[in-house]
Amino acid sequence: MTETLDKGVVVASEPLARFCAGVFERAGMDSDSARTQADVLVWANLHGVDSHGALRVPRYLAWLSSGVMNPRPRLRIDDNSPATFVVDADRAAGGVAMQAAMQHAIEKARSSGLAWGIVRETTHTGPMGYYAAQIAAAGMLAIVASSSRPLMAYHGARKAGVATSPIAMAAPGDKSGLVMLDMATAEIAIGKILKARATGDPIPPGSALTADGKPTTDPLEAAVPMPLAGPRGAGLSLLLECFQGVLVDHPLLAPALGGERAVHSQNGLVAAIDIGLFGDVGAFRRRIDELHAAIKSLPRAEGVDAIYLPGEIERETAAKRRQDGIPLPIRTWNVLRKIARDVGVEPPVPRNQP
Amino acid sequence: MTETLDKGVVVASEPLARFCAGVFERAGMDSDSARTQADVLVWANLHGVDSHGALRVPRYLAWLSSGVMNPRPRLRIDDNSPATFVVDADRAAGGVAMQAAMQHAIEKARSSGLAWGIVRETTHTGPMGYYAAQIAAAGMLAIVASSSRPLMAYHGARKAGVATSPIAMAAPGDKSGLVMLDMATAEIAIGKILKARATGDPIPPGSALTADGKPTTDPLEAAVPMPLAGPRGAGLSLLLECFQGVLVDHPLLAPALGGERAVHSQNGLVAAIDIGLFGDVGAFRRRIDELHAAIKSLPRAEGVDAIYLPGEIERETAAKRRQDGIPLPIRTWNVLRKIARDVGVEPPVPRNQP
Repeated sequence: MTETLDKGVVVASEPLARFCAGVFERAGMDSDSARTQADVLVWANLHGVDSHGALRVPRYLAWLSSGVMNPRPRLRIDDNSPATFVVDADRAAGGVAMQAAMQHAIEKARSSGLAWGIVRETTHTGPMGYYAAQIAAAGMLAIVASSSRPLMAYHGARKAGVATSPIAMAAPGDKSGLVMLDMATAEIAIGKILKARATGDPIPPGSALTADGKPTTDPLEAAVPMPLAGPRGAGLSLLLECFQGVLVDHPLLAPALGGERAVHSQNGLVAAIDIGLFGDVGAFRRRIDELHAAIKSLPRAEGVDAIYLPGEIERETAAKRRQDGIPLPIRTWNVLRKIARDVGVEPPVPRNQP
Repeated sequence: MTETLDKGVVVASEPLARFCAGVFERAGMDSDSARTQADVLVWANLHGVDSHGALRVPRYLAWLSSGVMNPRPRLRIDDNSPATFVVDADRAAGGVAMQAAMQHAIEKARSSGLAWGIVRETTHTGPMGYYAAQIAAAGMLAIVASSSRPLMAYHGARKAGVATSPIAMAAPGDKSGLVMLDMATAEIAIGKILKARATGDPIPPGSALTADGKPTTDPLEAAVPMPLAGPRGAGLSLLLECFQGVLVDHPLLAPALGGERAVHSQNGLVAAIDIGLFGDVGAFRRRIDELHAAIKSLPRAEGVDAIYLPGEIERETAAKRRQDGIPLPIRTWNVLRKIARDVGVEPPVPRNQP
């Protein structure tokens, strides 16, 4: 896959992360938290999930300035049982709260075998795979999810009723790395609608509604993504709200549908299961390798060049971008340069001439 | 919804359950286990999931007779941590092993807050909703899943590589009953292919492959269901194998894909989370009611008569069938009558003349 570089720049990941962290520090975050949040964004860019990458910086700054995102949250972790906990996030930057929950889940699972945590009242949680991959790297099974306000059509409805709640599951292999699914519950990602707007391509039938609730394939008219596989994506998203917001008394759907003022807010779920309780971890990892190999060698359907395990394409993209740098569209780059001037942080030096 | 009764019979659920239990007892199961397994099948019939109902009796008998299904299993429960356990099912009838795991999960979650159990080496686990609904009725959140041998195309492959692994999630409401998602990871249920064969209707494009790995809409040619939403259903099914069979060293995919002899076997996952740890259970149930009401009152898409919560249609079917009886196609009825004669158990008396 070659990146289209005309009209954009390529920047190395570490300078981009340092820049984002610097910007978040100027907006009031402490330096550790700023770097944590920057790492989440750059991980998304590295893995090709650019919709969750550095292009989010201006929105985060607006939230930090308006108080929607709290630059100095007091995270409180309540260990309400040996296996469960709640992180009261105090409107922290999503990456800061989720990363804290992820680290606590790993520590807690080391002593309790399994840890299941809910993050209450955070902000944009970013790519679930970032947290799930770290749990898997600690030799554990991971489940990470988040929930948000109504953004996606509920099955049968003509307006947004549920969130595009993402969920990731990961299991560590040995030589094969890891098997990691990271999916949204929507038929189409908002990022793909934005991309289709730029290219002028239609979006697939059944993937989005107009603001008036009519099905459309025109990305310019598309306003509300449809749920993944109809009632199933809608149902999964609804249950993720029940398991997160409804559970910790911070529901995000019913109040919004009832007409409460829309303020950005999310909840999260982070779970880690200690594989060693169930048997030898090395043997588990080798069984994952065997499964990986068996799936890769399945006979391919017509027109298919290779069979991919969940997360494999994203990891290949990350390996390439760690080497070659992260491509940023010129619009994103211009926004970041303006922010750099405004707040007085040096922008990363591009590897090419835009 | 009126049932088409010509060519079939209608039987009441309790006599049907007694009959199935009697048959399983004749095949060597103890009376409690026989009744447990019968209840699982009849629950499926009541909820309209007839593919998992009494029509399975002849196959179960063949398995009991060949030793694939063990009529007198020694279930061993290993509590490997305060939050986790493994049920070694000894090839028990799936309903017997899953029901034992479900009961253990509820008890364990009452003391530990959360219980996460893996059922190792059982047989056809049946409808996940049966177990999830009981956990929700105990005032807990439920996750129930199972995994099986290759039955469904992996995304990009031309033959079966993963199972149609189902997963259920449930949360208890107050007046609204419960919110329960019970879905397979396939684009189309095998039962729906069978139904289309009977009616002659085509199946949706992209839902199945022929035995040669070619896409088809002809239900007579359809041999391998496609994964739900492409890579996402395939990935979810693969991760469910990692979380179950790979975890407890009873993998079902890699050995089968590697050419090992196909013997029916399944694993299961049963998890219960005590809502009371996170706050008042009554308040949680009321928040579920609020969410239920908010979703039900969403503006409907064109041509949609009502918006349904996950599991709602199945519960309506069950209420109706508890009252009116369960319709069985004449073919199923004839098979059951033959079994009745063969093993000497009185069949249920139909409510109509077939």
